[in-house]
Amino acid sequence: MIGKLNHIAIAVPDIDKAITLYREVLGGDVSDIVDLPKHGVRVAFVNLSNSKIELLYPLGDHSPIAKFLEKNPTGGMHHICYEVDDIIKARDHLLGKGMRILGSEQPEIGAHEKPVLFLHPKDFCGTLIELEQI
Amino acid sequence: MIGKLNHIAIAVPDIDKAITLYREVLGGDVSDIVDLPKHGVRVAFVNLSNSKIELLYPLGDHSPIAKFLEKNPTGGMHHICYEVDDIIKARDHLLGKGMRILGSEQPEIGAHEKPVLFLHPKDFCGTLIELEQI
Repeated sequence: MIGKLNHIAIAVPDIDKAITLYREVLGGDVSDIVDLPKHGVRVAFVNLSNSKIELLYPLGDHSPIAKFLEKNPTGGMHHICYEVDDIIKARDHLLGKGMRILGSEQPEIGAHEKPVLFLHPKDFCGTLIELEQI
Repeated sequence: MIGKLNHIAIAVPDIDKAITLYREVLGGDVSDIVDLPKHGVRVAFVNLSNSKIELLYPLGDHSPIAKFLEKNPTGGMHHICYEVDDIIKARDHLLGKGMRILGSEQPEIGAHEKPVLFLHPKDFCGTLIELEQI
């Protein structure tokens, strides 16, 4: 079911510093900042040759990242995104196995304009998993 | 400097359950278990088409994973591994930028029989980074 590793998201307390770190210290190819107010995040991507890192910074008053940064003030790995061919089929398979999907269990349009679902970390070894239909 | 995303490591409290989860629930291609007593870990790999997930379980009394699992009993993302061409050049560049390398600052032979270094999470947005020379 799971296909490519689409990205790893890292929540960061200062996105400008994180961009400088990944660009100048780690020598990565980092995109410009993109604001996604609908998702409550400001992002930048580190483009690796086989995948990417999403640097995530909270935007607005109800950002899903704010609480994570309260608990982890220096930042940290936030989620891992796997690609799937058919997100409804993937969801139904997971529900059939007794796994929990976050929210309404309906795919939403994610930060990359593709349907996504988030899986419950407690069912997946403490890891927040995003599934993205490609 | 950083090349491919070599792997993401996930510490797990029960490796057999984690393998079943990744194999039967998430439909991944999971390797057999490999014990690496020198590194204090028991591992299995989820082979994705563009990268891999390393499932990490503590082995022996001095495993580097044991403390992480004490703090995160359901498991969680443990580190992210980037490939580099020249680990000595990478290390010297990072030290020149004031970054901290864990341990002796000398590359050691890692779980994949290649020279590796671990970077201090506090210098890298709360993320434990492994550099592996390919």
